[in-house]
Amino acid sequence: MRIRFSCSILLGETMGKKLRLDVPTLLLNTEICKRNIEAMVTKAFTSNVEMRPHFKTHQSAEIGDWFRPFGVSKITVSSVDMAQYFASHGWEDITIAFPVNILEMEKINKLATDIQLNLLVESTETVEFLGENLTSRTDVLVKIDVGYGRTGINWVNFKQILPVADAIRNQEKLTMTGLLTHSGHSNAAHSKEEIRNIYLETVTRLNDVKTFLMKEGFSQIKISIGDTPTCSVMDEFTGVDEIRPGNFVLYDVMQLNLGTCKSFDIAVGVACPVVAKHEDRNEVIIYGGAIHFSKEFILQDAKRVFGYVTNLNDGGWGKPINGAYVSSLTQEHGVIKADHHLLNRIKIGDVLLILPVHSCLAVNLLREFITVDGDRIPTLLSC
Amino acid sequence: MRIRFSCSILLGETMGKKLRLDVPTLLLNTEICKRNIEAMVTKAFTSNVEMRPHFKTHQSAEIGDWFRPFGVSKITVSSVDMAQYFASHGWEDITIAFPVNILEMEKINKLATDIQLNLLVESTETVEFLGENLTSRTDVLVKIDVGYGRTGINWVNFKQILPVADAIRNQEKLTMTGLLTHSGHSNAAHSKEEIRNIYLETVTRLNDVKTFLMKEGFSQIKISIGDTPTCSVMDEFTGVDEIRPGNFVLYDVMQLNLGTCKSFDIAVGVACPVVAKHEDRNEVIIYGGAIHFSKEFILQDAKRVFGYVTNLNDGGWGKPINGAYVSSLTQEHGVIKADHHLLNRIKIGDVLLILPVHSCLAVNLLREFITVDGDRIPTLLSC
Repeated sequence: MRIRFSCSILLGETMGKKLRLDVPTLLLNTEICKRNIEAMVTKAFTSNVEMRPHFKTHQSAEIGDWFRPFGVSKITVSSVDMAQYFASHGWEDITIAFPVNILEMEKINKLATDIQLNLLVESTETVEFLGENLTSRTDVLVKIDVGYGRTGINWVNFKQILPVADAIRNQEKLTMTGLLTHSGHSNAAHSKEEIRNIYLETVTRLNDVKTFLMKEGFSQIKISIGDTPTCSVMDEFTGVDEIRPGNFVLYDVMQLNLGTCKSFDIAVGVACPVVAKHEDRNEVIIYGGAIHFSKEFILQDAKRVFGYVTNLNDGGWGKPINGAYVSSLTQEHGVIKADHHLLNRIKIGDVLLILPVHSCLAVNLLREFITVDGDRIPTLLSC
Repeated sequence: MRIRFSCSILLGETMGKKLRLDVPTLLLNTEICKRNIEAMVTKAFTSNVEMRPHFKTHQSAEIGDWFRPFGVSKITVSSVDMAQYFASHGWEDITIAFPVNILEMEKINKLATDIQLNLLVESTETVEFLGENLTSRTDVLVKIDVGYGRTGINWVNFKQILPVADAIRNQEKLTMTGLLTHSGHSNAAHSKEEIRNIYLETVTRLNDVKTFLMKEGFSQIKISIGDTPTCSVMDEFTGVDEIRPGNFVLYDVMQLNLGTCKSFDIAVGVACPVVAKHEDRNEVIIYGGAIHFSKEFILQDAKRVFGYVTNLNDGGWGKPINGAYVSSLTQEHGVIKADHHLLNRIKIGDVLLILPVHSCLAVNLLREFITVDGDRIPTLLSC
């Protein structure tokens, strides 16, 4: 395997395509991506739970299509715009896993007419607004907060959950189909054990709410969970009806650091040209900054890490280089801390491959993928 | 003045335009923006220094044009793409204030033929590459690090500065026109006094390098500085030939917090729909997240602040609401901490105006401005 740091990086040489990596470019290893998809879908099917992948990570119709051979027909998105995009690409059962934005009622009504749309509510105000303004019957899920503390009604707060469920029952156009949560606090866990415990706690808490609601006369309450850490770490999904992980398709440094994936599971990297070297402070400057990665970081040994560093090779890229990391990002600049050994091997004009801390945000900023074979894969955001 | 939190926010009603703010939207107060431009240009001209504004903040040909009536004809950008965009909009003297990315040589050669292009170097390798590959004569500036510690040759490191200057002198196609620095550490200052000291230190250090180079036989060395904090705080620009501030056009919460602007100088805000309320933890959830603001934050009382909160009114928006702030951002979600008084006034479906921590990154993500009169102003990134 030839290791490439050279300044004449061309992708897809064998395919007759010549794509020069001269600016920060989001590279996709399709093989890894498809392997990640197959592994998660297989696990869901083995557990006999519905797989409703979250497409906000890749935002790409083409990558979405890679789920179809496995029989996946239901998806999750995080905005009305994203729902419109995937509906226009043939997805007919979409959950918008974000509290209904009532200002987008017209677009929601159009979608609810065209496809099986599932909305997320957590207040009687929103339920009543939907009841008055929806033009066709729509399914809703109640968002429950099982410990993340971002959105949803707290799982112990039966006094608040019941009025919302009742309000849905009172609206002719609405059907409550389930309880939905996002245990995002799993991204701050310190071990796989802690992640497993978050899963078990999540399931217990949602089932407590379900039991309560069933006593109140509700039936057919599905339980939907969906965060990449628990879905990656659990071998089977007891106690839930549906999983909605998204990030697992690409993974990233945050998941690697959590232990929910291996470095060879990360399906995206950003190719960044080297523009300067500072041997006096063991730093390399790349063209690649906050407008390519966003500013998400992890803390390692009390230091902020904005990405890991590796090299391109014939099949894609290598493992993260030991001791090298992106230590800061400004608008276009990235600063890489590297040891002398690596500094000596890197020249101005080389291209380094940076594994992003948060792949969802890098995809959103770079707006299209280039496969390691040199093919372009657009997203919702491509011009 | 009518304070608006209502769910039927329409912009430009009086103009016959009806633009509904139903998704996160970057609003521009053109009056403030033009006032910021006039104030900085006037100060530069009074000081008899060249004004070469950095256009990476707004990335917009239309906003760029607002500098022309003041006689500004030279600009700064941070990428070759941005240089191409502004060159295509009639700017004929452009400095790319980013270390030359030698992988973009073809595009650089095209630009160097079409306009007066000024490049930034900090290594003999890059100078030699340019000497061999440039097709027309080009001006270069040497990047000096006067304390920020990101790019540039350290100001005391004459042993490294001289070889770069000599290398430029040895290249027929290159002319060294000056020394350039970005004192970005001013953004971490704690007082105006500290910012003024950074300015004075910057000027002294660059002039030390200039004196050294003049003794070595170099002449006509211009000194170019450019960070919004020092340019905002100084009343006159003694000891420099050119200033290149960028952020001052829009300002933001980071600058407000530094004391380099007042809240009424901030020319952009992001209109965000309210989608949920959590009275039990004094939080409001908005549609507006990391994909609209990036993840830049400031620390206040050891808490991360990702934006200030205000309301829309007939002329634009009000002052930041005391005690309310964006406490976290995930992909689409923003969490606002607010007191009970504010929580009681806010309803689901209202639109809040969020002042961004870093306007450059918000513009880059939102890709177009909507003026408070309802007009669209595209940027380089608009589709």
